[in-house]
Amino acid sequence: MSVTAAKGFTAAGIAAGIKDSGDLDLALVVNQGPTRTAAGVFTSNRVKAAPVLWSEQVVKGGRISCVVLNSGGANACTGAPGFQDTHATAEKAAGELGVDAAETAVASTGLIGLRLPMDRLLPGITAAAGELSPHGGEKAALAIKTTDSVHKTAVVEGDGWTVGGMAKGAGMLAPGLATMLVVLTTDADLPAPELDKALRAATRTTFDRIDSDGCMSTNDTVLLLASGASGVAPGYDEFAEAVHGVCDALARQLIGDAEGASKDVRIEVVNAASEDDAVEVGRSIARNNLLMCALHGEDPNWGRVLSAIGTTSAAFDPDALNVAINGVWVCRNGSVGEDRELVDMRYREIGITADLSAGAESAVIWTNDLTADYVHENSAYSS
Amino acid sequence: MSVTAAKGFTAAGIAAGIKDSGDLDLALVVNQGPTRTAAGVFTSNRVKAAPVLWSEQVVKGGRISCVVLNSGGANACTGAPGFQDTHATAEKAAGELGVDAAETAVASTGLIGLRLPMDRLLPGITAAAGELSPHGGEKAALAIKTTDSVHKTAVVEGDGWTVGGMAKGAGMLAPGLATMLVVLTTDADLPAPELDKALRAATRTTFDRIDSDGCMSTNDTVLLLASGASGVAPGYDEFAEAVHGVCDALARQLIGDAEGASKDVRIEVVNAASEDDAVEVGRSIARNNLLMCALHGEDPNWGRVLSAIGTTSAAFDPDALNVAINGVWVCRNGSVGEDRELVDMRYREIGITADLSAGAESAVIWTNDLTADYVHENSAYSS
Repeated sequence: MSVTAAKGFTAAGIAAGIKDSGDLDLALVVNQGPTRTAAGVFTSNRVKAAPVLWSEQVVKGGRISCVVLNSGGANACTGAPGFQDTHATAEKAAGELGVDAAETAVASTGLIGLRLPMDRLLPGITAAAGELSPHGGEKAALAIKTTDSVHKTAVVEGDGWTVGGMAKGAGMLAPGLATMLVVLTTDADLPAPELDKALRAATRTTFDRIDSDGCMSTNDTVLLLASGASGVAPGYDEFAEAVHGVCDALARQLIGDAEGASKDVRIEVVNAASEDDAVEVGRSIARNNLLMCALHGEDPNWGRVLSAIGTTSAAFDPDALNVAINGVWVCRNGSVGEDRELVDMRYREIGITADLSAGAESAVIWTNDLTADYVHENSAYSS
Repeated sequence: MSVTAAKGFTAAGIAAGIKDSGDLDLALVVNQGPTRTAAGVFTSNRVKAAPVLWSEQVVKGGRISCVVLNSGGANACTGAPGFQDTHATAEKAAGELGVDAAETAVASTGLIGLRLPMDRLLPGITAAAGELSPHGGEKAALAIKTTDSVHKTAVVEGDGWTVGGMAKGAGMLAPGLATMLVVLTTDADLPAPELDKALRAATRTTFDRIDSDGCMSTNDTVLLLASGASGVAPGYDEFAEAVHGVCDALARQLIGDAEGASKDVRIEVVNAASEDDAVEVGRSIARNNLLMCALHGEDPNWGRVLSAIGTTSAAFDPDALNVAINGVWVCRNGSVGEDRELVDMRYREIGITADLSAGAESAVIWTNDLTADYVHENSAYSS
């Protein structure tokens, strides 16, 4: 279902030969309207890939007719020639589909610092245009995979309208405003400012709160396209909740498929003085390599949690910190709590609760353990 | 030689039974004067171990007669009982040596969240006091090891005076003001404020600029003790240079012995708008797990360097960034530079130069690669 669950969209995924493996590597998502409003959020990394720079401009217009996505190359750190490649990609797709290049978004993922093989990519757009179908969402989701072991899709049904989406992402997964590549579609009829508001609200507490390895990408892109084809204009709150639901499901799938991970770790920071404090503390815990190694070893090493909290600027008293791992309060009042032998860590999901005893705000951050497999996968990525 | 290279100091290292292994685990360093001035810097982690809280107070007095150090337990996150243990440790040593407990510093290292076995530690102090010797520096350095594979010592000779020191540290190695445990001694005759100034100047550009794994300890302690036994009062600049030399040698040894590491990585950030910018960028590069995996795989993956720079707030234009790896400028003007195949990464030391093209300031940060051995060592630490 993916991006074609909502009415008014066609999609395709093909093998254009960008990847040497021959796997699917080029996707098209086409918004057939009637309304074609759109919103997007992008990486906050200051080193932005060419397709991010291009698509940021497209989104400013509030309309997207088509998205071209490729795996097999990020087109990041490729200078002016790389930007020209993105521009040529948009022009080619626009020409094939009879739409405006200024309404054609581009997203790329793969290795940084390599030019894309345009002699394969441009003919691939022609081929993909010939395969566009209202059932093409699955193949499009397959075509944007890099090190992902599975493709990721999600759908939420409203009352007469639908929000669907697809995502890719398995490494360099610490989104600054978004995550790797995500395209959401809806047949609801909503103006671009409402799409933008709903998308930002959803990403703020979903993609922005997963932090697998602390490494922010140059290519993170989340787009939301509305076709209006359902003829229904839902209320904002109802629509925002559906967008949040799809983002949340996709974010959870991203963490579940993170490179080399053996554990999914849900870090809940409670009783913080502010939501910002809760997020800062959660992220600091998520990024602590030593703790993530311990969790891999099924070791409830709460001292490393406190050590991570101690590096933040959040409001707390060290003697009032409490930490639970999988429901066992192993640290109370900054010191030894319940017996750590009571903690059962055999399952893939691990829950850490950090109680700052400093207020009433909270936040949840998702991360993964640090494993030898992560090292292996990422020490041989270029080759 | 270590802490007994300078005149006026005795030391000892013994096995008190704190470690189950029977290895050396308790050290004493005694300043026999005549002057006994001292300075210290400590972790900036807000979760501080009991011995850090104690020794910070001792250093405020500007005098240290004795330092008690133990491995086998950090005495961190142990609450009021843990602080009482530190207090009892200082009182016991002071009683054995006939000095003031308020001039007795304590430093501990090992697992967080466990009480120290005081029934073994206190008799150990008596035993160690009986073994104090002007040749005891090596055994003291051995007694503070935890996961260190070697003990670390350094000596710089002045004109009629000496600065020597010992260090331990192999993990949780991202000092906030200091590194794990370091004791420096000198027989120079200098007042405490000058010791403090020289020590802060030295640690700022040595221990503060190593970042092996981004994890800041609760126990980092660096002490500088002066006996005045040489009868020489060197000029400040000459003395500060010697202190810097010892700190630099010890910091380099810490990086060279980091847990599981196979590469020592020297990151030099040049042409930064400010020294703070250079340090922020260097630290962001050092903490990028994906890059550190690539370096382990001898992959000159400069795209991950740019991606790390892009997450900082430093002044730079993405299109003016240059990156060299082992002298080959693989990235020029934010894009592809010299052929990455030219980079020879076979040796343990790797040099990365990041040119921000934004000013004239620079800084050097040292780190290590990320390896499967690091994961293995740290996923089985508690057990």
